[in-house]
Order: sequence, then structure tokens, then C-alpha cells
Amino acid sequence: MSEFTGYNGKSLEFLKTNKIIVGDSVKILADLTYTGIIMPRYEHRDEKHLVLKLKSGYNIGLEIEKIEKIEKISRPEKIIPKKENLEKNQDLPKILLLSTGGTIASKVDYRTGAVTPLLTADELNSSVPELAKIANIDTEVLFSEYSENIMPEHWLKIAEKLKEYSASTYTGIIIAHGTDTMHYTSSFLSFALAGFPIPIALVGSQRSSDRASSDAALNLIGAIKFLTNCKTNGVYIVMHQDENDETIACHIGTRVRKNHTSKRGAFQTIGDNPAFIVVNEQIEKNIKDEFFKIKEFQPKIKVNTKVALVKYYPGYDPNLLGKIIEMNYNGIIFEGTGLGHIGKTMYENVKKANEKGIFLGMTSQCIDGRVGMTVYESGRDLLNLGIISLKNMIPEVALVKAMWALGNSNTLEDVKNIMLQNIASEISD
Amino acid sequence: MSEFTGYNGKSLEFLKTNKIIVGDSVKILADLTYTGIIMPRYEHRDEKHLVLKLKSGYNIGLEIEKIEKIEKISRPEKIIPKKENLEKNQDLPKILLLSTGGTIASKVDYRTGAVTPLLTADELNSSVPELAKIANIDTEVLFSEYSENIMPEHWLKIAEKLKEYSASTYTGIIIAHGTDTMHYTSSFLSFALAGFPIPIALVGSQRSSDRASSDAALNLIGAIKFLTNCKTNGVYIVMHQDENDETIACHIGTRVRKNHTSKRGAFQTIGDNPAFIVVNEQIEKNIKDEFFKIKEFQPKIKVNTKVALVKYYPGYDPNLLGKIIEMNYNGIIFEGTGLGHIGKTMYENVKKANEKGIFLGMTSQCIDGRVGMTVYESGRDLLNLGIISLKNMIPEVALVKAMWALGNSNTLEDVKNIMLQNIASEISD
Repeated sequence: MSEFTGYNGKSLEFLKTNKIIVGDSVKILADLTYTGIIMPRYEHRDEKHLVLKLKSGYNIGLEIEKIEKIEKISRPEKIIPKKENLEKNQDLPKILLLSTGGTIASKVDYRTGAVTPLLTADELNSSVPELAKIANIDTEVLFSEYSENIMPEHWLKIAEKLKEYSASTYTGIIIAHGTDTMHYTSSFLSFALAGFPIPIALVGSQRSSDRASSDAALNLIGAIKFLTNCKTNGVYIVMHQDENDETIACHIGTRVRKNHTSKRGAFQTIGDNPAFIVVNEQIEKNIKDEFFKIKEFQPKIKVNTKVALVKYYPGYDPNLLGKIIEMNYNGIIFEGTGLGHIGKTMYENVKKANEKGIFLGMTSQCIDGRVGMTVYESGRDLLNLGIISLKNMIPEVALVKAMWALGNSNTLEDVKNIMLQNIASEISD
Repeated sequence: MSEFTGYNGKSLEFLKTNKIIVGDSVKILADLTYTGIIMPRYEHRDEKHLVLKLKSGYNIGLEIEKIEKIEKISRPEKIIPKKENLEKNQDLPKILLLSTGGTIASKVDYRTGAVTPLLTADELNSSVPELAKIANIDTEVLFSEYSENIMPEHWLKIAEKLKEYSASTYTGIIIAHGTDTMHYTSSFLSFALAGFPIPIALVGSQRSSDRASSDAALNLIGAIKFLTNCKTNGVYIVMHQDENDETIACHIGTRVRKNHTSKRGAFQTIGDNPAFIVVNEQIEKNIKDEFFKIKEFQPKIKVNTKVALVKYYPGYDPNLLGKIIEMNYNGIIFEGTGLGHIGKTMYENVKKANEKGIFLGMTSQCIDGRVGMTVYESGRDLLNLGIISLKNMIPEVALVKAMWALGNSNTLEDVKNIMLQNIASEISD
């Protein structure tokens, strides 16, 4: 680790000339006057900008050309692992934060340049001081994986851990999670922990902490406001609704998708408004119904991963479906076209799959809307071949639900019934 | 075929009591007075409604309970294949309509109850009389397939036919197509016919003609207005923008998706407004750039279908990828998570695929936004394993482009270059 991590060309020159290193507290005179800490850089390493962490916790990029003056205020002497004994206000609600990894649970140590994956209670409270004012937060690190490496076995670990806290005194539970596969995890938890008594919020951040304006702090604060005021249960994804910092959306965990690669408001409830929106201190409720359609908490924490998601497209080779059948899969979720169609070329292998007792469910790659397999002849053909029409279930949610249903049932008939039963708001009107 | 096709229970009783059969011209007194033709019913066969085709061409459903009186005006004696010699106004622009099938090219013969797939010029002009007032339309039936059965070989047929008309006197060309896979076809045509001199509009309808308010006529009229006034070329999908009949959206054929199973405004330009919007007689243009980045028309009408679209999800079995490699595929388009990620469990087989010379491209299942594979370590790992980051190309478009690129190139290097080159607005900023 150099004292200039990530800086190069003009920006490196600028720092050296001014005798400033990463980690220094500085005062900068540009279009405005800024004070903050010089951060290391990791991505888009252009040579034109400095990144400064402001006192608010926001990182901003400053163009070197526009800096009139930079002045060192202080330099940290050395790393002192500091144990902050924050006084807890016992009148505040208790929140549990489980960390699983992802951008939100990482922080860049500006002295070493390393992205450290752990987020302890003290670190959390000291990096986002507002949190301690609204809740007493206990944290626990479950594991540390970026979301593309979260697998069904991780879902089981999270669910088992949550189960331990089902009868606790916590008002709500936050799961810090990478955003990429957050909606798969929220779906699994919704099914496996149907009826869970207290609200669960999965929270992530779209911008890593070395980027200007990370959204982690605001999403966490929004989640705590939601959990302590929503007066309901269920599994929600809590993230920025859009670029506006004032509105944090709380999406039903089985009706949500990451619909943009990088925007803060990447998550969207499909075909509806978010269930709740936190607007400053207010919580707007947009749903009438209860999240769980099963009221009694009877956790079913098993999974069968022999389920494939098959996205149909023109030219899809039916032999690929043949391989899935040969590999002894137990379930296939089709992402058909339109109202839930796949080409005639697929029929023979669909028939084989059905004869082998594989669960076959149909969803639509349109994502929004409802499959309607009685409208056209091809839909009716597919129903006759044994495919079950999965209403308006999102393909990814249908996949997770099938893995869960197959993991917790003994007969194909049971699986079919479970798939059509609305358990955790995965089916809507 | 009965005289009461699709009617049952109360509605059948009602028709029989009043001595009305399907095909009769009737006058109905209900909340208003309606005149039209009794249509057969095919879907949602509830027993409460009659379907009436109004003179405007719209079908409406009328609740039997609310009908005060029904009166037969006339009954067609027998089917006379009628050759209408519509006088053509030679001052009007010439439009070619190629029919490929789908809901738009079907019509319900209310005497036989059959859905006839052909749409001749005369039938078209007589069913949508407005068309003859704005253009001279020649039609040609290419084939008749619902869109889930449209395969890459159909793309080739359409492209070859269009090529024949590249130097014609037509102002524009309409392709009537099923909506489910219309965006796959529009993508192929955009690449294969890059530089095509006159505008092409793919038009479909979301509501079959035996449903109340089919959108076919309005989409066709909108497409003709667009083709005759847009003063540009390119391949567009022209459909209702939303439920409003006043606005018809013209989407860039490589930036569009069917995002709802049933809504009239199911098609959306990803991450942008539609390129053009037809609002009554006005055309609003929302793009600055030319559709084709390749100006000279040099058709390349070949396809290699050994390309798989692999949608990654938690628990995706890397052995499925292994099978694709074993089956001698030439290209794989990943629909990764977020910024373009797949789990570590996939790396070994990705490496194998790369060593075998398979083209590997990354897109995002977020659909909107841009893959960014240098942000996280896993993205950089995947780049090192030989996966090409496909910017903001929509997964379905990337699949079609890879099939086309592999069909028209001899080396992997060529394919990689073509995939990164913006040919028909498939990549945007």
C-alpha cells in the first residue's frame, strides 16, 4: 500500500506537490471550501480527480484543475483500534444487524487501501452516527460474500440464524447483503420463514464506499426507521427509491427485482408501488394486505437445488432441455415468451420431462404481467404437456420457490399445490 | 362450427331466445344504443357477455344483464369471396406489408369461428378503411407463425425478402409479426440489413381480434404515419405506448423489450424514451442520432444458432455450462447479475469455454444499465477469463447479435470486434 493508492498522473503529481497523502484531513478551496479526508481510489482511475470523504460521510470527487488551494489539517499518526463505548439509550428500539457481505458491509480502510469486509457494531455506529440516535443496534457477521457468490447454502445459514432470533426482543432485523442477488435471498427467506414474527429488511448499497456518495448510510437509516415504525412483519428489500436521498423504498421481498446495474434506485417492485416508502420521518404504506398469507411461524428451512431456470428464445436448442432432464433435475422453471409460450420444437422434451415427474412451471420473460396459458393454442398445448402456469410470479422468485418447495415436500402433487399457493405475497392480483 | 361459437350458459340462452346467431348485424339497447356484428368468443368464456364488433372496428363486450333489447338488422346470406377493387390514389405513398403471422395477421371469421392467419390487401383495406386514405398498401404473406415458433430460419426468410425490396419505390415496409419474439426478429433485421435504405416497422397487436378493443388497427395506422413521415431509416417496433389510443411509440429495434405479458403498451425502449412517438397526426422525434452506424447497405444474411443464453442465478450448476461446451457451441451470452457477475463456481468451466475458442459475452439480468466489469474483483476475474463486457446491450439483443456475428465471420477476433462495434444503435451512451 502506497501513500497514494489509486492516484496517478496529474492527481498523483498534485498530491506529491502539495505533500498530501491518502488519509490526511484537508481543507480545499475550489468552487466552495471543503474539509474532509483524502480517500484512496479504486475504479475509473482517471487522473483528474481527488476523492474526499466529507464529514457527512459522503464521498465527493473534486477536479484538480478547479482546486485553488489544498491545506493539510492533520495526519493520522497510526492505527489505534479504538473501542468506542457508545452509551446505549435503553429507551430506543433494539435492532439486530446480520452482515453477509457485499458492498454495504465493506469499508475501505484509507490507510491500507484494503476493502475490509467486516462491519462491527462500533464501526457502524461510528461511521453512521445517526444510527445510535434511533436504535440500539447489535451486529453479527454471518459470512462475507459478494452476492454473486451467495449460494442456496448461504440462504440456509441466514434462515437458520434468523430462526434463532424469532422469539427475541428485537424490533426488527437488518440483513446487510450484496445487491446483485438480494432478491433471490429475500425470496428464499420469505418462503422458508413464512410467518416470521418481526420485520426483516435486506439492505445493500449500490455505490462502493470509495465512490462519491455511497448510499449505504441512508439505506441503513431508512431501514431502521421502517423496522421500528412499520407495525407489521414480512421480508423487505430496503433501498433508495430513486436518485433522491429523501425517499427510501421498502419492497416486498418476493415482488422485487434489481432492474438497473448501477442506479441507486435499481430495485423496483414489479407491477406495483413499493409496499412502504420512508420519506424523511414519515412512512407511507401502499399495501392493504399482510405480507405473509401463512400466519403461523413454522420454518421450513430446506432447499433442493436441482431446479433449472430455462429462458426460452428463438433457436433455443431442445437438446439443452434434454441435458437437464438427463441430469436428473427435479424442477424446471421456464421463462417463456409473452403470456407463457415456448416453441413447438420443445414439446417432445417437455413431454419427456413431465413423464419423468419433473416439476414444470411457466413464467414470462416479460417480467411484468401475468402468464395466461389458455389464450392461445400453444399455451393450452403446454398445459396439456404438464406445465403449470405460475400466474404473475417473477421468474427468479418462481425458481427459488421451486427449490424451496422441492426441498420441503415429498410428492410432486404437494410441490404443485405449494407453487400455486400464495405464501408470501409472491402472487398478486 | 355452431351458430353460437364460444357462447354458453346465460349468453347462449340469451342468443337463442332472441333468435340471434354469430355473424348477425344487430342493434342493442343497453346503457347506450349499439349497432354491430355479433362475434364468436374464444377466451375467458364467461356466460355474462356478448362480444359486438362495432363499425369502428373495435370489439366491445356487453353485459347481458344490462341489455334491454336486441334486434336483428340483417343476417349474411352466405360467404361470397369478394374482390374489392379499391381505387388507389396514386398520389399516396406506397407501403409494403409483409405478413409473418401472430395475432395481428389473424382474423376471426365470424361465420366459421376459425382464426384465419392470412391478411390480404383487400381484407386489410376493408377491415381498416382508414389505411387506404393514407397509403397505397401492397401486401405479401411470407409465412404464418405465432411468434414463439419463429426461429432463426424465419429471420433469414424475412431478411432475404426485405433485401429484394431494398431498391423499390416503397416509402417504407411494415412487417406484421407476433409480439412475443418481435424484438428478437427486429434485432436480427437491424444487424443483417444494416444500412437498409427505407424505414421498416414491425407491428403486432396485443389483443386478439375476438377481444374487446384489439389494438391492431391503431398500431397499423400509427406505423404508416411513422413510415411516411419519419424521414429516416432503421428498424423499429411500432406499438401502443400505453393504454392511450392517441400515442403510438416507435422503438429502436435493438433497444426494445416486451416488458408486460398483456398490456397494450407492453413494449418499452430500455433506459430511454421511444425514438419517435406518433401523437395523432404529429410525429415527435426523441433521438438525435442515426439508427444505423453503418451507412452503406451491405446485407449479411447468415446466422449461427450455436449460441446459448445463460442466465446465472444462485445455485446455477456449472455442469450445465459444461454441457453447452461439450455440445460444441460457438458462443455463450451470459445474463450475469448486477454489473455483470457470475459466481466463482463457474470459473473453471468459463476457462474451458475460453480455451475452446467459444465467444463469451457478458450482459446483465438487470436489463437496464451498463455492465461494468472493472468495478469489482469478480468482474476483473471474468475479464481475465476471456469474457467480453457487452456494455449496455440488452441480453436478448446480444444473443441475436452473437448468432449473426458468428454466422458472418471467420475468426473469433472478428466476432469480438463486431460484438463491440455499434452497428444499429444496440449500444447507447
